[in-house]
Amino acid sequence: MSYMPNWLRQRAELTPDRLAIKSEQKEYTYRELYTASQRRASFLKHSYSLKKGQHIALLMKNSVDMVITIHACFLIGVRTVLLNTRLSSQEVEWQVQNAEVSFILCDRYYAEIVDSIKTVEILYHDQLEDLPSFEKFEEETEIDLRDVATIMYTSGTTGHPKGVIQTFQNHWSSAIGSTLNLGLQSTDRWLLAVPLYHISGLSILIRSVLYGICIVLHDKFDPVKMNRAIQQDKVTIVSVVTTMLKQMVDALGTDEYPTTFRCMLTGGGPIPRPILEVCVKKGIPVYQTYGMTETASQIVTLSPEYCLKKLGSAGKPLFQCEVRIENSGQSCAPNEEGEIVVKGPNVTEGYWKREEETNKSFVDGWFYTGDLGYKDEDGFLYVLDRRTDLIISGGENIYPAEIEGVMLSHSNVKDAGVVGIEDETWGQIPHAFVVLHDERGDQNILEHCQEYLASYKIPKSITILPELPRNASNKLLRRLLKDSVKGHAQ
Amino acid sequence: MSYMPNWLRQRAELTPDRLAIKSEQKEYTYRELYTASQRRASFLKHSYSLKKGQHIALLMKNSVDMVITIHACFLIGVRTVLLNTRLSSQEVEWQVQNAEVSFILCDRYYAEIVDSIKTVEILYHDQLEDLPSFEKFEEETEIDLRDVATIMYTSGTTGHPKGVIQTFQNHWSSAIGSTLNLGLQSTDRWLLAVPLYHISGLSILIRSVLYGICIVLHDKFDPVKMNRAIQQDKVTIVSVVTTMLKQMVDALGTDEYPTTFRCMLTGGGPIPRPILEVCVKKGIPVYQTYGMTETASQIVTLSPEYCLKKLGSAGKPLFQCEVRIENSGQSCAPNEEGEIVVKGPNVTEGYWKREEETNKSFVDGWFYTGDLGYKDEDGFLYVLDRRTDLIISGGENIYPAEIEGVMLSHSNVKDAGVVGIEDETWGQIPHAFVVLHDERGDQNILEHCQEYLASYKIPKSITILPELPRNASNKLLRRLLKDSVKGHAQ
Repeated sequence: MSYMPNWLRQRAELTPDRLAIKSEQKEYTYRELYTASQRRASFLKHSYSLKKGQHIALLMKNSVDMVITIHACFLIGVRTVLLNTRLSSQEVEWQVQNAEVSFILCDRYYAEIVDSIKTVEILYHDQLEDLPSFEKFEEETEIDLRDVATIMYTSGTTGHPKGVIQTFQNHWSSAIGSTLNLGLQSTDRWLLAVPLYHISGLSILIRSVLYGICIVLHDKFDPVKMNRAIQQDKVTIVSVVTTMLKQMVDALGTDEYPTTFRCMLTGGGPIPRPILEVCVKKGIPVYQTYGMTETASQIVTLSPEYCLKKLGSAGKPLFQCEVRIENSGQSCAPNEEGEIVVKGPNVTEGYWKREEETNKSFVDGWFYTGDLGYKDEDGFLYVLDRRTDLIISGGENIYPAEIEGVMLSHSNVKDAGVVGIEDETWGQIPHAFVVLHDERGDQNILEHCQEYLASYKIPKSITILPELPRNASNKLLRRLLKDSVKGHAQ
Repeated sequence: MSYMPNWLRQRAELTPDRLAIKSEQKEYTYRELYTASQRRASFLKHSYSLKKGQHIALLMKNSVDMVITIHACFLIGVRTVLLNTRLSSQEVEWQVQNAEVSFILCDRYYAEIVDSIKTVEILYHDQLEDLPSFEKFEEETEIDLRDVATIMYTSGTTGHPKGVIQTFQNHWSSAIGSTLNLGLQSTDRWLLAVPLYHISGLSILIRSVLYGICIVLHDKFDPVKMNRAIQQDKVTIVSVVTTMLKQMVDALGTDEYPTTFRCMLTGGGPIPRPILEVCVKKGIPVYQTYGMTETASQIVTLSPEYCLKKLGSAGKPLFQCEVRIENSGQSCAPNEEGEIVVKGPNVTEGYWKREEETNKSFVDGWFYTGDLGYKDEDGFLYVLDRRTDLIISGGENIYPAEIEGVMLSHSNVKDAGVVGIEDETWGQIPHAFVVLHDERGDQNILEHCQEYLASYKIPKSITILPELPRNASNKLLRRLLKDSVKGHAQ
């Protein structure tokens, strides 16, 4: 019961002529994508004697080539460790050793990162020969859903990153849960401009094959190009994180999206209310969602009919999934804040060879996310912040995301980050970092905050920076901001 | 990994205010349907001491009440044996004894059928009290996908009927495979006018809850009412069998369906080409499909883009499913005819307490359907007929369905059935039974056949009848026709 045909193989059999990928350079139908993936699988298997169950790491940027390689790995049963391209050499080395990879398959572009690595073999992507025909190879025609498909490392606030094990079941269930919520049309096109090495990108790749729809693939985030893709390339769904959304809306100006554009799936932290309100005004169908590497993408998403009524909520669990709020071991009442705890067939079984961390995060099949939130009386989830980012000031809980949202609604604020700093009187007080559109422009940011925030939430000081530290998936690295304040204070 | 929240419970939590069912008398939202099902579950559990794993039989006609009872059974973990309402007393008694049911829950309408049954307790549906509030009961909040959900009896050509075991996994996979092919819109409405005790009806009920869409429920088939529902009740999808389709098209006259009507899912045997051609002309989106009780509904369906290009084909397997054609233990080449063999998570694990029949039909996870067909060079399945209905005449294979299709395209033919009768010279020769629109009208049916069929396929004789014997799901009972010819000859 846990077996099914390989996804790309079946898709190519069912709808060979449908478009699978459209990048700036190339277009592939599902038949072409399958043949290209078989060719690469054959090459990898014969040239590197890869065997089912072995691990290889990919250090690549978004490209059709990367998609083909991921599918090729599935076709030979090789597990793919997807590396963040912003990692340092040391970080890459630690992860590939922890993941026990046979080699790193790397874009030449990242040669500098891997140059110093001596413990693991490096294979450059341009060394792969794409032979016009390919030797027969033992293709894994069936998938065992229990098998590990991919591993992605996720950074905690302390210690080494943890390799999240993602099985085929996790990916399958995530895609199915998503479609039962968002619906599916054979004409759907999903714009992929988030990194493929991140679950937000990989999950689009997997959905496209299961649904038989087309990916419009961008190698990196460019708000103008993304808007153009929505307006001209028949894109119907886009995945973004909050900062991308803000930039796209800014770049859109007075323009609008066509009515065929049906979903702006927005994850990576709560969306500040002012941005949501602009989207509502412009008729942009924003679907706020909550998910993480450990849940193989979305686990909670707001259904269409509640987009307006429950503005700011991440929604309700996807079908098959469950969410509860817990505080000191007790389930919370409606509107009571606590840790978000989740369950479902899309949730990872744990971290690669990290038994202690796995046992700490998983209890009776429930995963403790470390995020804070609450459910309202109708069961809608509101995500407040990472538990580790919470600022406690004079006994009051302050959520940085809320303050950042207000700051971002100031016309001259391009980006904002808030952290707690030590304070003798209050324990902690909020400190803000902002990036301005115009350094000579309006800087009355604190006055602006006073309009919207209780006084204890208003940052006591502001640092202006040319840009904020964000990771590859555009998440704000508050830890670095915090360190910079400490450094400054010393 | 095999557990998930009870489907109705989760649906009511996710989208409580969406319409779940619309019948002529009543409308229920998902919240209301869940509460009504809890109430019934509580009553059944407390009044009849039902326990998880017990079996009860339902002898009911399509109604909201029947839907509520099925959900109530899922909520207490009781397995439902769905009885065909056209059965004789003896047949009912045999099935409920074989299925080991605790009692039969029966519409008063069918009292005559169950009156003589003394071996099993009968409970009439109008004896169920719908209390305004309900006692707490131990609700099965989670489903184990491996559990048996329902049992439906299917008649072979010889021997007793076999109870097809349908697990929650079978139903789940069927619904998911269907949506990956047909797509899903939150505004979808599925017209249910096929029997709920048949897999074609039950599968709509299950899809509706998983998808969060509305069922428009009819208690029986009426072509005029069905057309009206499509035209006025915002129905987007309809499930029919071939004879229903023909009657609906006839009743439609020069009218058309609205463009929001997107799928006429047509199963229950191959559709005669002339009817398909009429549908194409009228812009009716016919999706031919192939499935059976053992596959929990569809297993092969024609995707939208091939509706015209592959007219007459049942399509390709649903996602997760596989189909092959086999002849004498060998896989057939394209266009070579043989038995249709299928595999997938929607396929039953076997027949209730019928080990021998189960072992005969299942080999290495593949189910031998007993149907004949072939795949063309592009992998599209064409279903020819039941293997047992095949007529072999002078060494030539003759498929009754093909001849019936041609006869049905004659303007005065309302229904047609063809069987083989013994012949000294040819072994077998085809004999036809027809129902005419007008007995005094055009009867040049054999001349009509000569235009479309090779001479060896043309029936040697025709019997005109007022109606043809069909079972509850409108399938032609060729066995009875055959018996009548034999009786006549003797």
